[in-house]
Formats: sequence, C-alpha cells, structure tokens
Amino acid sequence: MEKIKIGIIGYGNLGKGAEKAVKLSKDMELVGIFTRRNKSEIDSDSNIYNISELEEFKGDIDVCILCGGSATDLWKQGPEIAKNFNTVDSFDTHAKIPEYFSQIDGSAKSGNNLSLISTGWDPGLFSIHRLFSQSIMPVGETYTFWGKGVSQGHGDAIRQIEGVKDAVQYTIPVEKVISEIQSGNILDLTTRDKHIRECYVVVEEEADKNKIENEIKSMPNYFSDYDTYVNFVSEDELKLNHSGMPHGGRVLRIGKTSENIKQIYEFKLDLGSNPEFTSAINVAYARAVYRLNKEGTKGAISVFDVPVSYLSIISPEEQRRLLL
Amino acid sequence: MEKIKIGIIGYGNLGKGAEKAVKLSKDMELVGIFTRRNKSEIDSDSNIYNISELEEFKGDIDVCILCGGSATDLWKQGPEIAKNFNTVDSFDTHAKIPEYFSQIDGSAKSGNNLSLISTGWDPGLFSIHRLFSQSIMPVGETYTFWGKGVSQGHGDAIRQIEGVKDAVQYTIPVEKVISEIQSGNILDLTTRDKHIRECYVVVEEEADKNKIENEIKSMPNYFSDYDTYVNFVSEDELKLNHSGMPHGGRVLRIGKTSENIKQIYEFKLDLGSNPEFTSAINVAYARAVYRLNKEGTKGAISVFDVPVSYLSIISPEEQRRLLL
Repeated sequence: MEKIKIGIIGYGNLGKGAEKAVKLSKDMELVGIFTRRNKSEIDSDSNIYNISELEEFKGDIDVCILCGGSATDLWKQGPEIAKNFNTVDSFDTHAKIPEYFSQIDGSAKSGNNLSLISTGWDPGLFSIHRLFSQSIMPVGETYTFWGKGVSQGHGDAIRQIEGVKDAVQYTIPVEKVISEIQSGNILDLTTRDKHIRECYVVVEEEADKNKIENEIKSMPNYFSDYDTYVNFVSEDELKLNHSGMPHGGRVLRIGKTSENIKQIYEFKLDLGSNPEFTSAINVAYARAVYRLNKEGTKGAISVFDVPVSYLSIISPEEQRRLLL
Repeated sequence: MEKIKIGIIGYGNLGKGAEKAVKLSKDMELVGIFTRRNKSEIDSDSNIYNISELEEFKGDIDVCILCGGSATDLWKQGPEIAKNFNTVDSFDTHAKIPEYFSQIDGSAKSGNNLSLISTGWDPGLFSIHRLFSQSIMPVGETYTFWGKGVSQGHGDAIRQIEGVKDAVQYTIPVEKVISEIQSGNILDLTTRDKHIRECYVVVEEEADKNKIENEIKSMPNYFSDYDTYVNFVSEDELKLNHSGMPHGGRVLRIGKTSENIKQIYEFKLDLGSNPEFTSAINVAYARAVYRLNKEGTKGAISVFDVPVSYLSIISPEEQRRLLL
C-alpha cells in the first residue's frame, strides 16, 4: 500500500497531537514537521525542518496539516500553503469563516489543490451535529454546551491585565440546564444561563487583587456576560493542578416530529486532551482530502462536504459489512 | 423553488412517519402514498394509490421512500422499484446488508437511478458514529446500546408461541455498565452484560403460564443469551401501558490518542417515537439522493457515502456561516 505523505506545519500542542495521530495511522507516513523555531529546540524523532524549506517539498507531501493559530498564523500560512499543497486546518474564528473560506478557495484552486478548513471538534464535529440534527428535524431547538474545559483565549485575555503573571480559565456548563433539556424542555437561554467561567490567577506580589478581580469580571465579550469566579493561586498550584488540557461539551437538539412527539438527539465529548483529540480529527480529514483531491475535487471545503466513508482506512465493502 | 416530488411506498408506522416528515419539509411535495391495502381503509388527506399503479408515475416522482419491512417486503420491492425510481429504504437485517446492497446496486444502475439503503438510526446514524469514531481514533473500543425501547422482532417471536395472544418486548440497557464506560473503563462485555429483556405477555385463558415463560426464556437468538423477565398482563393493560413506541440508545467509543490519554465519544438518542424519527431521517436522505442523482451518481449507496451538506435545505454558504 502506498502511504499518504503528511507534513505537519507548526509544533505547538496541535502539532504534537498530529504527530501522534499520524503514527497511529497505518496508511500514513510523516514526511516532516515544519516549524519556525530553532530545530535544536524540538524534542522529537520525526524529521524537523524550518518552515521556509516547505516549498521544496512540493510534490513530495500529499497533505499539509496546518497546526498554527487562527488569530494570525492561519491567515498568512493557509492561503500561501494552499497554493502548493492540499491542506487541512482547524481555523476556529467562527465569525470569520466565510472570509477565510473564500481566501483559501482561491489559493487552492490556483494550484489544483484541495483545502479543508475549520475541522476539529468545534468547529468540526459539533458543526456536523448542528447541521445534521436540524436537517433531519426541521422543527426544534439546538443547544451547544462547552466544557468543563480550558479556554485558551480567555486565559490569554486575563494575562493581558496589569499585575497578572499567569492564568487558566475553565468554561463550565450549567448541568441543571442540561438535565432540563435532556428531559425534553425547550428553554430560552441567555449566555449567562448556559455556562459559568472559573479563573485561576497568579499575580505579582504587589498587585491589587480586588482591582484585578473587577477587571476580569467586567471584561466585555470575555466575562461580563457570565457569572465569573476568580481564584488567586500560587504559581506552583497553577502548575500542579491546572496544567492539563481536558475539555468536552455537547450538542443537544430537541426535535418535534409531530404535535406531541419529542425526539432528543445528543452528541457528547469528554476529552482527556483537547489538542490530541482535535489533531486526531484533523489527521482523519487529511485522509479524506487526499482521496477527494485524487478524484479531482479542488478549492476549499468544510467537514459538511465529506462523506464519512472517506475518513476510514477500511474499504467501503468492509465498512458496510462490519459497521453499517 | 421546484419541489422534490416524493412517493411513499407502504403505510404502516414508517409510512405514516414519512408522511409527517415530508409535510415538515418545505422543499418537498408528496405525490402520493402507494399501498397494498384497500384505499378506503386509509385515513389520510394525501393522495392514496394502489402499489400496482406506481409504475405509471415514472418520471413524476423524484424519490420513492420504501416503508416496507426488511424480512420480505424490501427484498421484493427494493430491486423492482429501483429500476424505475430513486429510492431510500431502511433495510435493517445487518447480516444481509452486503447481499441486499448488491441486488439494489444492479437494479438501480440498470435504470440510471440512485438507491440509498439501510438508513434510519440503526442501521443509519449509529452506523455513522461507529465508523466516524473508529476513523478518528483507531485505537479504542466501541460499544452500542439500545433502549429502553420496544423491539418489534422480539414481540413477534413471542406471539408465535402457542397460547400467546399478544406481547410487547422492551430492550433495556444496563445503566451500570454504561456509567463505567462513560468514566473511561474499557470493558469486555458479553451479550448478557449489556442488555436485559422485559416482556409483557397476554395469554389465552387456559394457557400454561409456566410453560410459556420457559419457552420465551429459552428461545435461542432472541432470549436465551439475556436475562429475561416475563410479566403476564391483561389485554387492557397491554393496550393502556405498552402501546407507545419510544426507543433510543447510544454509541460510545473510548479512544486512546496516546499512552495515558482517553477520549470519550458518545452519541445518544432518546426517542418519543421510533418510527417517526426513523422516517424523519429517511426523508432527509431522500433530499440527498435527489441531489446526488441529479449530479450523476447511480447505483446503491449507504449513509457512509453522503456528505451532511446534502441533507440540508439551506445553502452551503449559509450552512458555513450559521452552523460551522
């Protein structure tokens, strides 16, 4: 069997997760990891290259998995790399997806390549469930809950406050509300009803804790619409108790198929490692991108455009025989 | 907007569910219901035809939704109707899927039609989750649980026993085992560990209840591998308390993405009406079959071959903007 040749672009948490997932995929071969860092800093037995060397691998890599961040990395890397390679990324700025899709679509088409954007679990799996459940039950209500898990963006926001040395923020769904929905109650929920935010914050010795707490709680977009709890902890405690990367969440739809009939559809994830799970999804979609491009598909696509059959290493006949 | 023209073949519980689901789909029009029964027996404001009239509608129906049973109806109707129409069915005899697929594939191709077999929730949605979760996490274990819900096949089996007038059988998952899996324990389970079977049986006045109970409990394939509980009830009680059609179940996969990291993937349904939910899925797949056939896809396919985008009434741009 000829293996699918993979390049990993970026070696943060997502890149490391992708490296593990490629190794678990018998039909794939990791050509190399491409990073901006000094190669000598990278602790890995894979081939490590500088990102500036990537273009030389044109023709030798089937799919590049882009593991950079959405805020700046992907806007630059995505359109550039899509000119020369098939790509998969986990662009997750929901509001900017149409604009990003359009840029990538142009680049990928110019190189006859295929780029799947915004995979992972949300956007990604959760998106599939929002679309699927609404498509089969047009009358109903869909709810998405996240957590308990660490939100990187919210931790970053706290770290911008003067006097803060480090911070971790947990998004926590309100279980009582979830139970009510699971029992078939259609609820009209505000942002505050659905999630609470719990912060663990390390401050400078002389910092004004009251002032910092108020600044966090009143921060627009990030915290002001939520019940927010702030805990001040030592650097050691943060490291010891809050350095894992668990996450999860669920998509729930209560559909009505006739006057008195409710149908409850639920998809739930409970993740030991958010980046490892995200990367596992990205790697399966790299398989699909490789196959779809071989069949002639070009431009940008999303998880909505990929039949599940294309994600699997087993043949369609075996899929039907064993799993249908 | 030109509407998708639907024919419903068969008017049992599934046919009635399909009729409701088509009415909730703004892009569809129900051309008619085709039944073997006397038209005057049918209580519906839709157009009712005898099944023998179906062929006259060639060209006037875009997709036929086959609502007959897997044991006999679909083996005969599926290949015949697929010659003249696109079809969707919920063939659910797991072991016979490859043979059925092959027959339908030949028929559909001979008429340039497209037939999607074995949709619904299992096979169907649950199949998608078994394949999806295994594709993204190749190392791990998948579990499927059904219930609490009525198993028509098991009720039928009880009704074959001498002295039995009527019966309802509930398949009930063992909650304790589910909780253990949800907390990340990989278990090696026998059939008996996963589900129990609860039977409500109405017998003839003179019947030997002990003998009937033993016959049920020792019935191979259906009951002998399970802890089975038999309750004898009156005809009135059966009608009053056991005539609903709730069902549900879940697919769980515990995946390992690295040595010490477990990821728990769960898909769960809690259904007020099994046939209405199954039909709601079939109708969404009828939309996909119509579109895929327009694009030139022919022969037999399964849910594994359909991108979720094709199930939705909203445009790909709106799907990305609102739900990705």
